Amino acid sequence: AQQALSGVAMELGDCAFPLLREIVCTDNLSVGFKDVQAALLVGAKPRSKGMERGDLLQENAKIFIPQGRALNDYAHRDVRTLIVGNPANTNCLIAATHAKDLPKENFAAMTRLDHDRAVWQVAEKTGSPVPSVQKVVVWGNHSPTMFPDLTWATVNGRPALDLVGQDWYTKTFIPRVQKRGAEIIEARGLSSAASAGNAALAHMRSWLLGHTHDWVSFGGWSNGNQYGVPEGLYYSFPVTIQNKQWSIVNGLNITPEQRQRMTHTANELLEERKAIESLLKV
Amino acid sequence: AQQALSGVAMELGDCAFPLLREIVCTDNLSVGFKDVQAALLVGAKPRSKGMERGDLLQENAKIFIPQGRALNDYAHRDVRTLIVGNPANTNCLIAATHAKDLPKENFAAMTRLDHDRAVWQVAEKTGSPVPSVQKVVVWGNHSPTMFPDLTWATVNGRPALDLVGQDWYTKTFIPRVQKRGAEIIEARGLSSAASAGNAALAHMRSWLLGHTHDWVSFGGWSNGNQYGVPEGLYYSFPVTIQNKQWSIVNGLNITPEQRQRMTHTANELLEERKAIESLLKV
Repeated sequence: AQQALSGVAMELGDCAFPLLREIVCTDNLSVGFKDVQAALLVGAKPRSKGMERGDLLQENAKIFIPQGRALNDYAHRDVRTLIVGNPANTNCLIAATHAKDLPKENFAAMTRLDHDRAVWQVAEKTGSPVPSVQKVVVWGNHSPTMFPDLTWATVNGRPALDLVGQDWYTKTFIPRVQKRGAEIIEARGLSSAASAGNAALAHMRSWLLGHTHDWVSFGGWSNGNQYGVPEGLYYSFPVTIQNKQWSIVNGLNITPEQRQRMTHTANELLEERKAIESLLKV
Repeated sequence: AQQALSGVAMELGDCAFPLLREIVCTDNLSVGFKDVQAALLVGAKPRSKGMERGDLLQENAKIFIPQGRALNDYAHRDVRTLIVGNPANTNCLIAATHAKDLPKENFAAMTRLDHDRAVWQVAEKTGSPVPSVQKVVVWGNHSPTMFPDLTWATVNGRPALDLVGQDWYTKTFIPRVQKRGAEIIEARGLSSAASAGNAALAHMRSWLLGHTHDWVSFGGWSNGNQYGVPEGLYYSFPVTIQNKQWSIVNGLNITPEQRQRMTHTANELLEERKAIESLLKV
């Protein structure tokens, strides 16, 4: 892959980005993670036909344990790390666990793509500009169990659910956002790439430069005190971000219906954690 | 291709860009070009093994004649059109000729990628930030005959040629920029894509929002009165841009050595024009 990587580096340079100063291409973790302040862990092993989830998680652990250790040993102490490679939430848990001296809050699993997909669905359905859609939430795991939630969403200040209708919300919106990845593979013959790249940049921009004009979905560390989500999972919450610190939006009233969906996706994350429990010993 | 296109549209929406309102997917030119104010003609037929240049130009004419006509018949009268598909300069000439009611100045062949490649080479060589590199010029055809010219280039106000040396300039810089496309194919196994896309956006941004802080290379219509370039070619010049109008940088003194390279690439464009002359009858 080193040769193809050198081609990617050439193209990156050829973009003449005003802030790009130097490109280091390496497969040596101690070189690659040296002093980094923003890390994007993109590569992961995809599920192959007939592979059990346990095997998938184990295979990915082999990637994310050494990356977590390298971040711990070589990265800037203030590094923010985004895990994009799937299964992102559990890969994030593994990496963060093995970066034992770094704060768990400074790791995140990417659910921004799910968030942006949800925003676009509402914008398209209501014929509204994207920035008029606010307070969309994606809860839980970046997987088909995720819960894209429009309970508090507004379009130009009006409740989104009044505009789109309960029927479209539960029968079209929720499953479409949950399965958007598959829909795109079906159409393109390839996984989402540009939109995932864009979401990774958007996530990092929000984290590093702030995000206070709206809520945004963020696969962050659960301390066990918020919305009944078990401690020690990376779970997508609605957050705002200031000074590189994310805070979960507080005090939202959760209905039994929401609770059920939030628990369903939390349970999947508990199962995933169980399958790799032995790998969480540092 | 319609199905893959629908997947691209999904990903575009999923980026949740604040300015994106609607996506129209069509292979009907009268629908696609209706009222457009910015047109990017990206698709072209690449040269296949053993294909003569004349055949290549003819094949592409089949694409660019109807697109030029459709722009003429359906686009906004103020449309700016960028031709990215190769051979870009001659494809541009064909499209502009068949858009007979639209100003020739509002069509351009993309040489921004060559420009940005040249800027990056100087930035990398001198270890300088990209924005410190100014007054780079690419003359002529978007092909290996192009002339990337550092005569007036500066790095932090100092003459670039003093910093990089004449030897590196003629033996490394010029051929590398001319053949950068091939270098990237060699490394990646695929043509430049991300950097070409970035250059197309940068070109359009400069055209529509202005570019006065530096010169930029622009494959524009030659009226025959500037730098000895024959009339009626799309030829890359150094320009500045204001109010959506590009102006060639005036009064540059050209040495015989520069003249020779500028004529060489102009001659190639004259030959290309000759090969498709019969297709320029409107």
